[in-house]
Amino acid sequence: MNLDQLRQGIDDVDLQIQRLIERRAELAQQVGRVKKADSNDQPVVFYRPDREALVLREVIDRAQGDLPPKRIARIFREIMSACLALEEPTRIAFLGPEGTFTEAAAQKHFGSAGRPAPQTTIRDVFREVEAGSAHYGVVPVENSTEGVVSHTLDCFINSPLKICGEVEMPIHHNLMAAGAIDVRAITQVFSHQQSLAQCRQWLDANIPQATRTAVTSNAEAARMIAEDMPAGEVWVAIGGDMAAARYDLEFVARRIEDEPDNSTRFLVIGSIEPGPTGDDKTSIIVSLENQPGALYGLLEPFKDRNIDMTRLESRPARMATWAYVFYLDFNGHQQDPEVAALLDDLREQCLELQILGSYPRAVL
Amino acid sequence: MNLDQLRQGIDDVDLQIQRLIERRAELAQQVGRVKKADSNDQPVVFYRPDREALVLREVIDRAQGDLPPKRIARIFREIMSACLALEEPTRIAFLGPEGTFTEAAAQKHFGSAGRPAPQTTIRDVFREVEAGSAHYGVVPVENSTEGVVSHTLDCFINSPLKICGEVEMPIHHNLMAAGAIDVRAITQVFSHQQSLAQCRQWLDANIPQATRTAVTSNAEAARMIAEDMPAGEVWVAIGGDMAAARYDLEFVARRIEDEPDNSTRFLVIGSIEPGPTGDDKTSIIVSLENQPGALYGLLEPFKDRNIDMTRLESRPARMATWAYVFYLDFNGHQQDPEVAALLDDLREQCLELQILGSYPRAVL
Repeated sequence: MNLDQLRQGIDDVDLQIQRLIERRAELAQQVGRVKKADSNDQPVVFYRPDREALVLREVIDRAQGDLPPKRIARIFREIMSACLALEEPTRIAFLGPEGTFTEAAAQKHFGSAGRPAPQTTIRDVFREVEAGSAHYGVVPVENSTEGVVSHTLDCFINSPLKICGEVEMPIHHNLMAAGAIDVRAITQVFSHQQSLAQCRQWLDANIPQATRTAVTSNAEAARMIAEDMPAGEVWVAIGGDMAAARYDLEFVARRIEDEPDNSTRFLVIGSIEPGPTGDDKTSIIVSLENQPGALYGLLEPFKDRNIDMTRLESRPARMATWAYVFYLDFNGHQQDPEVAALLDDLREQCLELQILGSYPRAVL
Repeated sequence: MNLDQLRQGIDDVDLQIQRLIERRAELAQQVGRVKKADSNDQPVVFYRPDREALVLREVIDRAQGDLPPKRIARIFREIMSACLALEEPTRIAFLGPEGTFTEAAAQKHFGSAGRPAPQTTIRDVFREVEAGSAHYGVVPVENSTEGVVSHTLDCFINSPLKICGEVEMPIHHNLMAAGAIDVRAITQVFSHQQSLAQCRQWLDANIPQATRTAVTSNAEAARMIAEDMPAGEVWVAIGGDMAAARYDLEFVARRIEDEPDNSTRFLVIGSIEPGPTGDDKTSIIVSLENQPGALYGLLEPFKDRNIDMTRLESRPARMATWAYVFYLDFNGHQQDPEVAALLDDLREQCLELQILGSYPRAVL
């Protein structure tokens, strides 16, 4: 086929794709009408994280040809997002302002038809969703370099909200300075301990002479470079693009992380409890008595039932009754019989156990 | 149909959409092979802004049903972006850092399969594209509140690059303060003249007591609130989310603009010259002699040939030879006979005339 014929072929395919997308929107609207008719005047939840995860996984599983399966899945997320917006625009509360990493995470998860509602604090994100002003919230939970995990988890403790999904976002580290510098003149490099560790090989190879100093966060490191650097010193910081923009720093080098797949994890919070999809995670918070063997007793049921724990994090106990507090993620859904049995076992070991939610594993 | 039947129907449609997207990718790859075979070893340009604009307009024109036509077009932009990435990832230079408004514009135009290459200055964006390190660049051109237009235009004067497309992005104004304040206590509001004008009604209705002071840019206004506010005063600034993030300001009110459709315009720059699409714009820079009637003489050919000028902006002349310099946008493509004749007329009126490019009008 020549160019004109190929382009005609593409145009024909495009028309078919368009008609099918329009047909899909019609069917989705019918789903909305059936849900409303069946709702007995209760508020109808149109966005179902479990159903969406199943569709996206199906798309990835059956992918053929050279297009990367995740790229096709992203196109489907946009199609689903557009169809959903016909029902009711999904209002998404997130830690603002607009243009931040959390908004990017919200958009990755909900597609561009979601209505962003930026909030000033993580607590405000919870409040908006609890009050029904937003359908879902997106909050950071695992960002080892900035230490925001604890604040998000604290918000769950007195909230009726559940985790409905998770979003993973790749992150990159850059070396930043206050203006143009000679790399050989660098005297100190500041960053969060975790970032220093993640860039160790690059630092060894490129600025072995620089003293490495760990500070509380990457944002704090950027601030120090911008504001605290004494004359005669050449300080640099490791951090993301946001920190550079905020403190007007220049990039000495970009993407200096040793492992290219650092990622930050966000949670989708809401009032619904997604059903099982066959590939789910469950998050819980437990408190243990302050006595020898308590943690061992907690881990035993996981081993016995052969359930993978994907994260275990100890938390400072804010309340007197919660002597030792742990945050745990593990594979499976609370409706799976094995997981339900595990949760029963754990309840015997713990002073308190709060299920934060069972939700589909991040697809994209 | 009940819920299960409808969902089955959606699943069937999804499978068909997926197979068609995969078929489209195959055809696009064949286009790439034909182009390569016909290239005589010249570099092949896979992304054609004119062809893409035609496809998107076709999608919008033939849209049926309740999905907003522009939303379907955005899905097609993603499909085209994914197919294009199979040929060769399109590297896009833009004014960094990542996470800025210009990156959002680049993504809106090229879809998410483009490879972003953030640059420190607008001049660097031009250099990257001129050197072939990036296929295209995205630069701000019409952002009345920040005054970046002039710098971008200056870069064209000594560059072989052409304008290949335009991107329009909606912008919003917010009222921002350094912490929680009582609106009635506000003494002064700072912003760029243009922003103050765009929010006049809101300011009249909500803070009539506050003195309005125009400063050089919205970023400068935000900086002043953060750093220069004297004790006893309550200053606020009008600006976008980026400025708030950068200076850690809080939002007193969001989206306070009187007209909800302020937008910022970006140009796509590259080494190719898109062909006519039937709905194009042409941008030129001209210099006129410093004599009475020179500007009138410039405008006459537009009236005579009934060609719409969409923008006329005077520029400070940096070079002695360019006595008066004007930047003009008008409807039509330089290959259209009427536009070609207009350009001939203009050449007679001007000391110099540089065609920056003819390109498809922004579709989305």
